[in-house]
Amino acid sequence: MLTARKAISIGEAIEKIMGDVCTGVAERVPLMEASGRYLAQDIRANQDVPAFDRSLYDGFAIRAKDTINANQMKLVLIEIVGHIGAGAVFQGEVSDNQAVRIMTGAEMPKCCDAVIMLEHVKELMVDGKSYISIDKQIAENEKVFKKGAEITEGSQLVKKGERISPGIIGLLATFGYSEVLVGAKPKVGVLATGSELLDVEEPLAPGKIRNSNSYMLMAQIEQLGATPVFLGKLEDDLEQSFNAVEQALEKVDVLITTGGVSVGDFDYLPEIYELLGAQVLFNKLAMRPGSVTTVAKVKNQFLFGLSGNPSASFIGFELFVRPVLRTLLGNKQPYLNTHKAILTENFLVPNNFTQLIRAKVKVEGTDIFAFSNGLNMSNSITSLVGADSLVLLPPSKCGYEKGSLVDILLLSEEGQSECFFLT
Amino acid sequence: MLTARKAISIGEAIEKIMGDVCTGVAERVPLMEASGRYLAQDIRANQDVPAFDRSLYDGFAIRAKDTINANQMKLVLIEIVGHIGAGAVFQGEVSDNQAVRIMTGAEMPKCCDAVIMLEHVKELMVDGKSYISIDKQIAENEKVFKKGAEITEGSQLVKKGERISPGIIGLLATFGYSEVLVGAKPKVGVLATGSELLDVEEPLAPGKIRNSNSYMLMAQIEQLGATPVFLGKLEDDLEQSFNAVEQALEKVDVLITTGGVSVGDFDYLPEIYELLGAQVLFNKLAMRPGSVTTVAKVKNQFLFGLSGNPSASFIGFELFVRPVLRTLLGNKQPYLNTHKAILTENFLVPNNFTQLIRAKVKVEGTDIFAFSNGLNMSNSITSLVGADSLVLLPPSKCGYEKGSLVDILLLSEEGQSECFFLT
Repeated sequence: MLTARKAISIGEAIEKIMGDVCTGVAERVPLMEASGRYLAQDIRANQDVPAFDRSLYDGFAIRAKDTINANQMKLVLIEIVGHIGAGAVFQGEVSDNQAVRIMTGAEMPKCCDAVIMLEHVKELMVDGKSYISIDKQIAENEKVFKKGAEITEGSQLVKKGERISPGIIGLLATFGYSEVLVGAKPKVGVLATGSELLDVEEPLAPGKIRNSNSYMLMAQIEQLGATPVFLGKLEDDLEQSFNAVEQALEKVDVLITTGGVSVGDFDYLPEIYELLGAQVLFNKLAMRPGSVTTVAKVKNQFLFGLSGNPSASFIGFELFVRPVLRTLLGNKQPYLNTHKAILTENFLVPNNFTQLIRAKVKVEGTDIFAFSNGLNMSNSITSLVGADSLVLLPPSKCGYEKGSLVDILLLSEEGQSECFFLT
Repeated sequence: MLTARKAISIGEAIEKIMGDVCTGVAERVPLMEASGRYLAQDIRANQDVPAFDRSLYDGFAIRAKDTINANQMKLVLIEIVGHIGAGAVFQGEVSDNQAVRIMTGAEMPKCCDAVIMLEHVKELMVDGKSYISIDKQIAENEKVFKKGAEITEGSQLVKKGERISPGIIGLLATFGYSEVLVGAKPKVGVLATGSELLDVEEPLAPGKIRNSNSYMLMAQIEQLGATPVFLGKLEDDLEQSFNAVEQALEKVDVLITTGGVSVGDFDYLPEIYELLGAQVLFNKLAMRPGSVTTVAKVKNQFLFGLSGNPSASFIGFELFVRPVLRTLLGNKQPYLNTHKAILTENFLVPNNFTQLIRAKVKVEGTDIFAFSNGLNMSNSITSLVGADSLVLLPPSKCGYEKGSLVDILLLSEEGQSECFFLT
């Protein structure tokens, strides 16, 4: 039986999905495991950086006023009264016309206010005492990294929701965070439907294909920072499928199914949503591939019914699952980055639906060109290999000519806070 | 004692480093663990895709010639003689004017050569038999995904050295690769030098700072796909440091040290290289930050002597360590991606050295603008937070004006095969 479905736009679909999604729970992890996770706490400076006046170079810590009269005609002799490496603190006194040999990063001795580099002095001995001769005036604070010059205690450094980059790891270490509060990884179940599916280890058999979507989706989930849970595959049997979905929902935070959402005789997902009492947010999209993509909710739990076709399933994940998982992780930039690009071939077929073309971009100077990547069919798997972007072709009566400026979604890891489809 | 060092360009340095680096060893991993690794084998199609003629839609498999005379004035009645779902194989015969109800992805029955969609027929009963009525001519192969139409057996699909993306995971599953040969992860030791360093857990003390470089570098190593090995820190003591470096070289494939490569009194790395009989490839670079970056080799093992300053150390890793690790992993695109960008502020100071400014890019239309990110000093850690690129300012007598078109290196995960500095 064919049920009439109303196709909605990608933007409407994202609005329905993202309406009430909130950040998930947080967990504390050791700093060594925090890289790539999302901060669940703001990071404020708990100290000044530097925490003390530091020498910026290997040289001599001096008192700037002792050099006021120095020039190439009139050298100033300053006595070396000590030697200090990084990590040590000079305990002595430094009086007029005295200096301390100091290494990069070491704390400035009290009473010293400038550093002259090793390369800029001459060392000499007079009456068994060591001196340096200086032939130019040195300004106060020269070559000194003043306490708090980079960061002042209490300042806000990184906001909750940021992805923890290597630079942020360095910052956290600087402030002594041996543990960090990050967004816990949502568990995302992947359940394939279809009697035609074989496991990856099984030999091919007549009429059968291997289950490739589950593995692909698990890689997408993992790349996004969540935890994939392999739930195997379902035969085309309603009761068995319903039980499997019900049990899966107890094990995972989010459930992705592939296949079974169209109008075929064994497409049981619509009936399963009904039996579960799920709220179907939409079951038809004005996009290709993936027009049958269905999203439903049971209480607060998402059920993503992706197409069984590889390209459609891949795109459905990036457009709809991705922002939910990223939001659960606490990330404030859950959407794919967008860019303008120049189309390198004609797409002159009229289309009522937005087309998403798997593409490869090439940068030349300041221009970005988008080349379509392999077979433009929803069941293509090769078009995903090497694709680094999706070209968006909105509905059009005459299609798009080569050379048109089009929008592309970049299939990179990092995202943006504004959804292209909602702007 | 100050030893004269000759500053070489970044390009020369990369040439010296990359001269004889080869791909490392390979290992076999389960498909589920292969995502993000680098292929150590070419992937060829071991079957056609599809492996058999498949229906592209839910509908009826027919013989196209039966519809030759069909039009809206003259309906053709075709008897339904079977029903087939995906994964099953129709065993019966299909004769003239007969059809089989067929679901998306199912194997076409023998003798059928086209599919008409469910939406495009009317079903009816005549004398207890089921028929469909067709009102238009259907072409041979319509709505059929022919055997081998996407991939023909034996064709080369993905080359050795490619990063295994989710799309490639899907492809590998399609061809039944339950295990994949990938580049083994090189073990990369990180050893910090300097008596001023505290562990991340230790409370601050006078003259001391926390060891932030090691954690940052470990995150960079991990992000790149290699295995970081934390080796702690060294006091400023030559013998102890020499022993530690010698032992470290037995545990890891590549060794990174931070600090100790300058001309300070406790900068022991130059002496350690000598004691080890290491070949120093260079110890001075015409770049800022990181001019003291030193790279040495003991037999085939790399010792990267990075600066102890966070920004210098970060950049030294991305420019010099990265291409070595990526090459060991078997990746053929080991270098940072480059792009042109518009400078958004003046850098008018003359400079004999290439400057690398930590930056953040902003895309507007087809233009990319580069904004410098925080304190432009080699010891800055905050400038790394949020930086997504490095602006390159080659040596110049008058500096660079706001609005200039400059080259940037993108700090993303994926790389390119040509090194910017070697072109």
